Amino acid sequence: MADIVVGAYLFRRLREFGIETLFGVPGDYELDLLDHVEEGGLQWSGSPNELVAAYSADGYARIKGAGALVTTFGPGETSALCGLAGAYCEFVPVVHIVGYPGLKAQRGTQILHHTLGDKKYDHYIKMSDQISCASVVLMDASTATSEIDRILQAMFYHQQPVYIGLPIDIALSKVSPSSLETSIIRDLPLNDPMVEEFVVKEIYRRLDASKNAVIIVDGGATRHGVVSEVAKLIDITQAPHFVTGMGKGAVNERHPRFGGGYNGASTKADVKHTIENSDCVLWVGSYLSDFNTGEFTMKVSAAATIDFQRFYVMIGDKKYDVKMKYVLQKLINTIEMQPLSVVVTDMPCTPFDGLQAPESQDITHKWLWQRFTSFLEPGDFVITETGTAQAGMNEAWYPENVHMFTQSVFGSIGYATGAAVGSAIAAREVNPPYKRLILVTGDGSLQLTVQGFSMLQRNGVTPIIFVINNKGYTVERLIHGLNADYNNIPLWNYAALLKAMGPDVASKSYQVAKSAELDQLLQDEAFCHASYPQLVELFMDPFDCPDSIKLLGAAAGTHNMGS
Amino acid sequence: MADIVVGAYLFRRLREFGIETLFGVPGDYELDLLDHVEEGGLQWSGSPNELVAAYSADGYARIKGAGALVTTFGPGETSALCGLAGAYCEFVPVVHIVGYPGLKAQRGTQILHHTLGDKKYDHYIKMSDQISCASVVLMDASTATSEIDRILQAMFYHQQPVYIGLPIDIALSKVSPSSLETSIIRDLPLNDPMVEEFVVKEIYRRLDASKNAVIIVDGGATRHGVVSEVAKLIDITQAPHFVTGMGKGAVNERHPRFGGGYNGASTKADVKHTIENSDCVLWVGSYLSDFNTGEFTMKVSAAATIDFQRFYVMIGDKKYDVKMKYVLQKLINTIEMQPLSVVVTDMPCTPFDGLQAPESQDITHKWLWQRFTSFLEPGDFVITETGTAQAGMNEAWYPENVHMFTQSVFGSIGYATGAAVGSAIAAREVNPPYKRLILVTGDGSLQLTVQGFSMLQRNGVTPIIFVINNKGYTVERLIHGLNADYNNIPLWNYAALLKAMGPDVASKSYQVAKSAELDQLLQDEAFCHASYPQLVELFMDPFDCPDSIKLLGAAAGTHNMGS
Repeated sequence: MADIVVGAYLFRRLREFGIETLFGVPGDYELDLLDHVEEGGLQWSGSPNELVAAYSADGYARIKGAGALVTTFGPGETSALCGLAGAYCEFVPVVHIVGYPGLKAQRGTQILHHTLGDKKYDHYIKMSDQISCASVVLMDASTATSEIDRILQAMFYHQQPVYIGLPIDIALSKVSPSSLETSIIRDLPLNDPMVEEFVVKEIYRRLDASKNAVIIVDGGATRHGVVSEVAKLIDITQAPHFVTGMGKGAVNERHPRFGGGYNGASTKADVKHTIENSDCVLWVGSYLSDFNTGEFTMKVSAAATIDFQRFYVMIGDKKYDVKMKYVLQKLINTIEMQPLSVVVTDMPCTPFDGLQAPESQDITHKWLWQRFTSFLEPGDFVITETGTAQAGMNEAWYPENVHMFTQSVFGSIGYATGAAVGSAIAAREVNPPYKRLILVTGDGSLQLTVQGFSMLQRNGVTPIIFVINNKGYTVERLIHGLNADYNNIPLWNYAALLKAMGPDVASKSYQVAKSAELDQLLQDEAFCHASYPQLVELFMDPFDCPDSIKLLGAAAGTHNMGS
Repeated sequence: MADIVVGAYLFRRLREFGIETLFGVPGDYELDLLDHVEEGGLQWSGSPNELVAAYSADGYARIKGAGALVTTFGPGETSALCGLAGAYCEFVPVVHIVGYPGLKAQRGTQILHHTLGDKKYDHYIKMSDQISCASVVLMDASTATSEIDRILQAMFYHQQPVYIGLPIDIALSKVSPSSLETSIIRDLPLNDPMVEEFVVKEIYRRLDASKNAVIIVDGGATRHGVVSEVAKLIDITQAPHFVTGMGKGAVNERHPRFGGGYNGASTKADVKHTIENSDCVLWVGSYLSDFNTGEFTMKVSAAATIDFQRFYVMIGDKKYDVKMKYVLQKLINTIEMQPLSVVVTDMPCTPFDGLQAPESQDITHKWLWQRFTSFLEPGDFVITETGTAQAGMNEAWYPENVHMFTQSVFGSIGYATGAAVGSAIAAREVNPPYKRLILVTGDGSLQLTVQGFSMLQRNGVTPIIFVINNKGYTVERLIHGLNADYNNIPLWNYAALLKAMGPDVASKSYQVAKSAELDQLLQDEAFCHASYPQLVELFMDPFDCPDSIKLLGAAAGTHNMGS
């Protein structure tokens, strides 16, 4: 094979594991690199700013398995840090490629723009090191390809962001592409067979002896790629199963054994009773953070719990050094070979109480979220923002083949709009493509990354954007400062914004204040299956919120302080 | 004095040195703290996102001497990092106050939102350490006030950002306010009198012997607070004096001895000749970065140069450990006592060639920037964005008492719009207030921080915003990728955006494509002295730019690589 430049090598590697679109903002230390995007088999999707780019790469990675963004040294990269910190926290593999000044420039005595003026070039990688599982600035063309491979390998090992600094001259240096013949390893190393066998046997023993085993599908199921194993485990055990907020969207909720959402104290009583009285809880990918546990109000028996994690499995209070993916696969095989002695068939709880009629002329949270149950359709992809949308959407009962995600732990407002951009693009690239992209955000959150509207209207995607206009940061009001001025925001015209950021795109907006009106709209065929982007502004009471937020708000104040 | 909470102590300290407005985005780890803003004598100005908040605090600090923003732990603070890195690079004192979880929470075993999920609480301060001259997380109420004082002291010593992490419980802990009776020291320690005297004598000797001394007023003059000393030095020496791009706005350009702008190769020939043939160059606050030196094309005699810096003065190749501020003061005193033997009175160059008529029906860069000369008025404050606006505005000859700044070294696009927000608010707080705030930005830059429009329309400020619509990143085109797609941006409707982000504010927008039309508008009394915010969108050729950018663009490619 003919030599290629290091930049093209990197891009071809990204293409190898399914990345087709790159996000980012061009800057002069990266322009030469961008000339090789096409050669690497990728396409460039310019972002209005770097934070939106980082969120987009995250949203893209959640669908495609990995994402990437390119920024420029200094201002570019530091503007993206919040997005990458979120990806680190939530286990989303994102490659952050940063265009650096050339080697001579870095070793020289001149002060270049975008530096801190002190002729040091390692400040920014030190910042990114805190939120990357591996990082490098490629200072030697002769090791560049192996370093790229090492870093990308680390990304798949840890399932977290990596940082690759690429000086202009290194990016343009010719190297042999021969190592491309060997793929990056994406799977984790196998388990020690002895330990694995012991663990699987013990789980099997517990399951087999259990009278009322349940499965909780949590964030780690999607983040660590065991969704298909989980689906098989559900089928073969027929165990009642549940999702946490972070696990929402990971399973088929119309499965006859799906029991609903579990969020601690605010969970439906029959669901809560079923889970908290189970003698065997298979908890897949638990992530016991405040927002994902109803502020630590889950009361699952620790002794009865088998906790499946990326790098270990805990049975009761014993921790075993085995990766869950292989344990789950082997457990499924074992059950297939030797069916469990008891398969309980009656379902002790229901996932949903049936669609409710509006309780008020106004759009209330109590009515709104469950109403999505009949609006959503198979093939939909849902993204919700931290706050009322994130909490509220747990109350909808999803049709089969509806997927979703939200940023549960890092909880950065503004994330959802940026992430939706990446997901919208990724949703076209998968086969079959997702049908509709549905973004549900709040006014306060939207103001952080409203630039995303520009990209959401291009690329031929047709999102439906719900914006809750409740005049400010409602979740914060519930935590502290109910009437404080700092929880208010300036009122914007969101419909006009959509149009202003896509004047050449056909789009449509709706402003809805009444429940009956919304009910109509959600049934309207033209709305439900439009071929253009749409925005629905929902006017809601600043002090209304889902019940789970009321509980959370009161508790969060205490837990934030430390209790 | 009665005890007050730590948060109120901090706010009173900020008030002490002139901060009246706080920027930031509320988050739940900081809400309790925000309850004490008023008690501290400050007002809260909520920002649409943290990057805009950081830029606003920077723009505010450039007028008021210091600025502050409050963000929340994790997503909030990391979104602000680019803005603070810029302040670090450009010597702008900004206090970054970050609301942290309480002490018990930090020492506990629960996973809180906004963390990275690993129960560690020092990741974010480590990131900020790279771009702060001092940082602390206050973990002990008994030392909190002295720690606050230490950090603020460091800010004034270095003239760079500081980081104060404030756990909720510490923020609410009661402390004695007694140390408020002693002010924070803002002045630098005095020089060693022997060294200072030697240096002043040597400078005097050189000045006295000089036939054609000149003064270059550079970035450090404003950044390190010697603007009034510089004005006196100019008066007493009557030396021809010049500004670099970074020093633009620091002097009265209608002073009879003002010679114009100096930017290396693209400087007016007579100005260049005067400076580069001077036998004694007093260079105040030089910052020899690429963009501020016409890509290192300045050719000033090193032997003839006296370089005045915050912490040292260089005479030729000898460096003396003395602070310029006291050296300048003493030099002025010395000249007052013992006038220089030769005071040259003929001016060897002119700052401006006279207003030009439009060269074309289109708005060209060649015509546009010098046209600002007659549009600007005493009392104006100008902020320009990195790129064509930053380079171009050097070509206008400012009336007396016009001030300006730009981010010359860090060069983060998006900065100007955010910074304008802070400056607009600060401009009302100074006495006398600035009359007009004029923001000149480009379409590509504006897209990063367009949220600033929301704030620019409130607070009773009446900015005039010029947006150069040239369909993308023109400076980047000139550096690399003239026709590359990555240098294009989606076209937005900027007038509609202004309205959408301030639907309840009277504002007016203009779209101008012809030079004659712009010429008219700039003379229109209603436009020039409106009582509401205005936006002027200037349609310009994507490949046209100021001459200095043409030179810079070609050279930047080489210097970025290292030459």
